[in-house]
Amino acid sequence: MLCDHSRPTDGRKMTVNGLIYWLDMAGVIIFALSGVVLACRSRMDPFGMLVLAAVTGIGGGTLRDLVLGVRPVFWVTDPTYLWVILATVGLAILGFHYIHRLSRGFLPVADAFGLALFVVIGAHKALLLGTSGLVAVLMGMMTGVAGGMVRDMLARRVPMVLREEIYATAAIAGGIAYVGLHALGAPGPLAIALSLMTTLGLRLAAIHWHLALPTFAWVVIPHSSPAPGEPVAEGQPASPPPIDPPRPKVRVRMIRPEQSRRRKRP
Amino acid sequence: MLCDHSRPTDGRKMTVNGLIYWLDMAGVIIFALSGVVLACRSRMDPFGMLVLAAVTGIGGGTLRDLVLGVRPVFWVTDPTYLWVILATVGLAILGFHYIHRLSRGFLPVADAFGLALFVVIGAHKALLLGTSGLVAVLMGMMTGVAGGMVRDMLARRVPMVLREEIYATAAIAGGIAYVGLHALGAPGPLAIALSLMTTLGLRLAAIHWHLALPTFAWVVIPHSSPAPGEPVAEGQPASPPPIDPPRPKVRVRMIRPEQSRRRKRP
Amino acid sequence: MLCDHSRPTDGRKMTVNGLIYWLDMAGVIIFALSGVVLACRSRMDPFGMLVLAAVTGIGGGTLRDLVLGVRPVFWVTDPTYLWVILATVGLAILGFHYIHRLSRGFLPVADAFGLALFVVIGAHKALLLGTSGLVAVLMGMMTGVAGGMVRDMLARRVPMVLREEIYATAAIAGGIAYVGLHALGAPGPLAIALSLMTTLGLRLAAIHWHLALPTFAWVVIPHSSPAPGEPVAEGQPASPPPIDPPRPKVRVRMIRPEQSRRRKRP
Repeated sequence: MLCDHSRPTDGRKMTVNGLIYWLDMAGVIIFALSGVVLACRSRMDPFGMLVLAAVTGIGGGTLRDLVLGVRPVFWVTDPTYLWVILATVGLAILGFHYIHRLSRGFLPVADAFGLALFVVIGAHKALLLGTSGLVAVLMGMMTGVAGGMVRDMLARRVPMVLREEIYATAAIAGGIAYVGLHALGAPGPLAIALSLMTTLGLRLAAIHWHLALPTFAWVVIPHSSPAPGEPVAEGQPASPPPIDPPRPKVRVRMIRPEQSRRRKRP
Repeated sequence: MLCDHSRPTDGRKMTVNGLIYWLDMAGVIIFALSGVVLACRSRMDPFGMLVLAAVTGIGGGTLRDLVLGVRPVFWVTDPTYLWVILATVGLAILGFHYIHRLSRGFLPVADAFGLALFVVIGAHKALLLGTSGLVAVLMGMMTGVAGGMVRDMLARRVPMVLREEIYATAAIAGGIAYVGLHALGAPGPLAIALSLMTTLGLRLAAIHWHLALPTFAWVVIPHSSPAPGEPVAEGQPASPPPIDPPRPKVRVRMIRPEQSRRRKRP
Repeated sequence: MLCDHSRPTDGRKMTVNGLIYWLDMAGVIIFALSGVVLACRSRMDPFGMLVLAAVTGIGGGTLRDLVLGVRPVFWVTDPTYLWVILATVGLAILGFHYIHRLSRGFLPVADAFGLALFVVIGAHKALLLGTSGLVAVLMGMMTGVAGGMVRDMLARRVPMVLREEIYATAAIAGGIAYVGLHALGAPGPLAIALSLMTTLGLRLAAIHWHLALPTFAWVVIPHSSPAPGEPVAEGQPASPPPIDPPRPKVRVRMIRPEQSRRRKRP
């Protein structure tokens, strides 16, 4: 049922499923490119590039299909995806002169486009299989986030989802937008467009203005410098407490993002 | 068959499967809480917390269902698990004042409870699907260990299973206890209780008294200080061997845990 | 269909499938041994060894079966694999005196044998299920690479596939050899032998002579020393560019392996 989304039968479904198919291909190409760029920076050889591009391009969808119980996963039934990745890597190697000229900003922006596309596709496929809305939102996030996360871990970088501002948030918002509009009976292309714009808008705004949600921390005014590798703020006093001093002053507060940034990169 | 464990039909099965269902929920809540605590310490934003809580709470079970061929995985058929995680994270954020007051010891103890619960549940579900006992023991360990391992890797900590004393051992012992008692025909609740007590007892004892199994090492009395990042004991002489000295004295011995600890944290 | 490869019916299939079964066992033993050796070096206790041996021995095949939709995975239907791992670890612990005497070169060589075996087995099982040739090549690579990658990540080492020369390349070449010979109608044992020799020859040659494919890099002649943690060559000028200097000289070039090695380990 999922497998023949490229050969749909009735009218409205054709539009939506055909659209989804092309968006899926676009997402695979963009994510594969992001894998190639990162492989270049990590000095991998051409086959290492291929591996990183494939992992990034089809990793999230593979996890989605495994969890949803679609067997075998989409790229085994439709190897077009693999050929597309092969062509992307081949063209990228031929044009590596241009790949290397890409500014440092290319990677997060490409990642944002891939994220937005995969969130919609993951939520769409989950709904198509009849899951509940909550599962569909989670599935969208998982599809969008997983490929990039494995890419970054293989290239030994901190995954963007942990490092960057408003990443999981944008994916969840895009998923909620799609599932909500679908539940309200909005036409497919409209729901897709609005969800894409939600994820993409949040991510690009976060990249451009360094937006972040507040984080929570229990700040202890330390008696001495904390041990290296230890987070600064913790919920308990330092391990050998002084015998009977006035207790250390603690304040619960939300860390506003600017403070957090300023503290990280002074 | 696995999916309707919340609506069992006959008497004894009802008791056991209903019990297992509630224990599963308890394990998800405890593991989700451990994810929230770690996300707090790593200064993640609320949605990052949600991701870490979900990965920890349902990661092990997802891997178990994938390997056992249960499709789709349990939380797709029963989204109650996701709502429970959502509620846990929401309440934890509302009460983050208290979360941050938790002592440093909370995390390993919560992890021990989650581990014990998930080992029983993993072994139980494997036996329910008719696997052999060895597979059921492995499945219990995998269910218990996987969620916490991914949690720690995402939060960039050394996974407890690699760092801590008697972790995999406790999980395997609990699994053997459950599978053995089941094979002996012990009543379900008794087998569950004894398995829980085995895992939990071993882990809590290991945490409290820093128990560890002996490890094996081939100790070379070094000619010079070993290179940083290199383990101290290796099976071969240092790479540029002196021209014709008396060969370095080597002794095979078991490293007792206290020595190992003393060496690590002097 | 896949499950009863140990009890085949007709003549030629028996030879090939029986052979594949024994080669699979050999691969599991070799990879399990490599896991034990690494666990020894990382000072894991006996049960940690068991976990690392199991992950390495059956990790790649598990991923392959999940992606191909074989349910449940092979070692659930045929627990012989688990008993073999148990026996391997047991014998290795009894003979740890000898394990520790193994030279440092043992690990990559054992890994090369396991890789060659698993590439053939992965490609064979994929073709048996009727996938296209491209999918079979990818499946061979995935089966061969995944176990070792997780082993190295759990033992906190850089995965060989990222660190070593000609690793993914050898796996892909072996997969192409098997799939190509199969498509040409070559007899099974011949295709297996030639594919094994392709992967093994490439890997052993790469290990012995430190062969590597050229990598691509856009070399910027730097104005100042690059920040630590940054790759030396990047596609963009340094972040705060001087106001109006002659632009930095950049050259696109392929980095030959020897240069890369010399730079890495001076």
